[in-house]
Amino acid sequence: MFDMIDCFFNPKSVAVIGASRNPKKFGNVILNNFLSGFTGKVFPVNPNADEINGHKCFHSVSEIKEPIDLAVISIPAPLVPAALKECSLHKVKSCIVITAGFGEVGNKNLDQELLSSIGKMRMIGPNVMGVFDSSTRVDTLFSPKHRQQRPDPGSIAFVSQSGAFGIALLDWCASEGIGISKFVSLGNKLDVNEIDMIDYLSSDNKTKSIALYIEGTSNGRKFYSSLKKAGKPIVVLKAGKTKEGERAVQSHTGSLAGESQVYSGAFRQAGVIEARTIEELFDFSKALSAPKMKGDHIQIITNGGGFGVVATDAIAEHGLKLGKMSDASIKRIHTVAPANATISNPLDLTGDASSLAYKESIVTAMADKHIDAVLVIVLFQIPALDNSIVDVFTVGKKPLFVCATGGEYTQVLKKMIEKNGIPVYPTPDRAVKSLKALHDYQ
Amino acid sequence: MFDMIDCFFNPKSVAVIGASRNPKKFGNVILNNFLSGFTGKVFPVNPNADEINGHKCFHSVSEIKEPIDLAVISIPAPLVPAALKECSLHKVKSCIVITAGFGEVGNKNLDQELLSSIGKMRMIGPNVMGVFDSSTRVDTLFSPKHRQQRPDPGSIAFVSQSGAFGIALLDWCASEGIGISKFVSLGNKLDVNEIDMIDYLSSDNKTKSIALYIEGTSNGRKFYSSLKKAGKPIVVLKAGKTKEGERAVQSHTGSLAGESQVYSGAFRQAGVIEARTIEELFDFSKALSAPKMKGDHIQIITNGGGFGVVATDAIAEHGLKLGKMSDASIKRIHTVAPANATISNPLDLTGDASSLAYKESIVTAMADKHIDAVLVIVLFQIPALDNSIVDVFTVGKKPLFVCATGGEYTQVLKKMIEKNGIPVYPTPDRAVKSLKALHDYQ
Repeated sequence: MFDMIDCFFNPKSVAVIGASRNPKKFGNVILNNFLSGFTGKVFPVNPNADEINGHKCFHSVSEIKEPIDLAVISIPAPLVPAALKECSLHKVKSCIVITAGFGEVGNKNLDQELLSSIGKMRMIGPNVMGVFDSSTRVDTLFSPKHRQQRPDPGSIAFVSQSGAFGIALLDWCASEGIGISKFVSLGNKLDVNEIDMIDYLSSDNKTKSIALYIEGTSNGRKFYSSLKKAGKPIVVLKAGKTKEGERAVQSHTGSLAGESQVYSGAFRQAGVIEARTIEELFDFSKALSAPKMKGDHIQIITNGGGFGVVATDAIAEHGLKLGKMSDASIKRIHTVAPANATISNPLDLTGDASSLAYKESIVTAMADKHIDAVLVIVLFQIPALDNSIVDVFTVGKKPLFVCATGGEYTQVLKKMIEKNGIPVYPTPDRAVKSLKALHDYQ
Repeated sequence: MFDMIDCFFNPKSVAVIGASRNPKKFGNVILNNFLSGFTGKVFPVNPNADEINGHKCFHSVSEIKEPIDLAVISIPAPLVPAALKECSLHKVKSCIVITAGFGEVGNKNLDQELLSSIGKMRMIGPNVMGVFDSSTRVDTLFSPKHRQQRPDPGSIAFVSQSGAFGIALLDWCASEGIGISKFVSLGNKLDVNEIDMIDYLSSDNKTKSIALYIEGTSNGRKFYSSLKKAGKPIVVLKAGKTKEGERAVQSHTGSLAGESQVYSGAFRQAGVIEARTIEELFDFSKALSAPKMKGDHIQIITNGGGFGVVATDAIAEHGLKLGKMSDASIKRIHTVAPANATISNPLDLTGDASSLAYKESIVTAMADKHIDAVLVIVLFQIPALDNSIVDVFTVGKKPLFVCATGGEYTQVLKKMIEKNGIPVYPTPDRAVKSLKALHDYQ
């Protein structure tokens, strides 16, 4: 079964059915995506074109005389069942139906037609953005690259029932320097669903953690069991938690949202972290691939006293504790800290803090056995710091989280730090909540 | 008294005491700030320099033969009292002491020396970033412009006890396109404090709303009365809310944080919105200059169904309601919406939504008497939209809030919309919380 799902992410050949030369059509964007990054074979299919932008175009899948692993379908809804039948006859292994206008708008008959047309193929969709794989460059996202950046390879897989939700989050990840292994939007889930994806991603060695947006599942028992045995950190945002949200879900993907308490209980029991908001989904996903956090004692290091206070409040409010470094650690930090520093917790290095003072303080706190995780607040705006501050942040044996608030200069340095595998948050509150999620998961 | 405080923001002449040609010194950055934007007279003062970068330098304030409205002082702490005495003798009207190393690190005697040296001057500081005025370009921030962007003129004034907190937030505002009228960091508050500032800003016609970061106040009764009679929306982040945070406050600015419940109660009674986090302070500040919100019925308009669901959940969770447009409104929207749209609340225009469909839907919802505020979610990634979508958002008679999640392209459009006076949030949850803050304030 995994081979079949793997075809979505790692196909050797792809047919783009509905390929178009009109840049406003999804079939144009999708074809261009494949032509510009994908290393396998690409076959444009359009009954009305002999070539598209210099590439030979096939009038139908039957004309292609080579095996096809994946068909990506973006043609009007009433034409999809026939296209699927042809794919199935032609022994295409898997298909992604981008097209909308099926069960989600009441066309339940058309849903049935799809299901009876796919034969032995596996199908993602309909009503999806489809798949993005940062390694193989399978990219069926119909949002053009100048509007939606694609993330670099990374270790977070992202499964979204909603396509638009997915691309907005991918775009956000890309602009923040967060890497992604695989993305899939599941839409109406007529065949492939969240359970298939969790099972597949659990044994995907490029994926260290999984972020999940769902509105509902059709098989709670199997879903729970997949989550529980995944063996990787999973963060989930369950939409349709309120009565009002539940109604909205029904007119969106036609899912039944179900009782939100039942979901929350199941998530807790399965060891899954539930995010309350999109921001938490994003923040927690970054956090969960950090090293093990053995206890709940945090050391704050800052060059802005106010931020130290706010972080202290957040630590107490979210149920974590301030650690107390050993006398030896305190003594060592005294030798490098500026004259006016407050060497305590928060460790306030003041605006005079140099990159070196940060470095020594971080190394000392990371090595101190009374400290389980280090939260470094760094205001890059202050002139005492030079750019070498970026190299101070490296993955160690304990979680090291960074908080940096600011504009363009801060964003540049932040991205460099994220690329080194260290999560960076724009506010102390978001950093601390993410530390708490990591603590609770472990 | 206002004239004296006005000297900080609107001086005709400024002496920069501690002006330096070394780019790592605060006195260098501050001098450059004044030389590059301020239209009044600037007098560099340094006993060891005759000129700095081509500008005549005075060895002391006494050498300057013209009236001085404001002295900005950045010299070692032990030298500050003498400098203040000289300023006072020379009839300088006001001074900002940037230098740290006073009461906040235990040097209480030095505090007393300062106080006994200022004579009739008003003093901001010590231990501050000082003042930034977006109109007069008074700019005593010692973070260089390539590290910290300066915001454009706008209607939010920002008062921060912590300097670093302030510059990080200003930097953030600038990069997000949020305008600021005036900024002041108050530090140790030996003379000018939050009460002076609230009183002054209440009658400042460039300021429509006030954001406040405080760790404590020395006169709760007067503070309360200033807040209450301000007549403008005020958002406050009170740090040191927990026991742990209270301790951190003491080693930061030496303030007594006091009971957080007492503060919260006073804020509520004075009609002040309390932010729990930095993000809320930032988000709510943008929200509070919006038009009046007469009730709690919100219309959601979206081109991404998942976002519509998440926003619906947020509205229910934060105690607001989904409105129900009139039949006439629904009918009108039917004529412009794409075929698969769900014309309800949320109004899901789907990925086929054009800028025109958005425009007509927004105009209709804004005019519908059953709707008190409109929340528009727009995923700019989707190719059906063109750039004219930006012009669809204009300030009307009801609050119009926008939510846009994404990367670089989204950020560009977001800034254009913010410049038109419409608040834009990166997630539905933050937009809805801000609508709720606006609702509660009014």
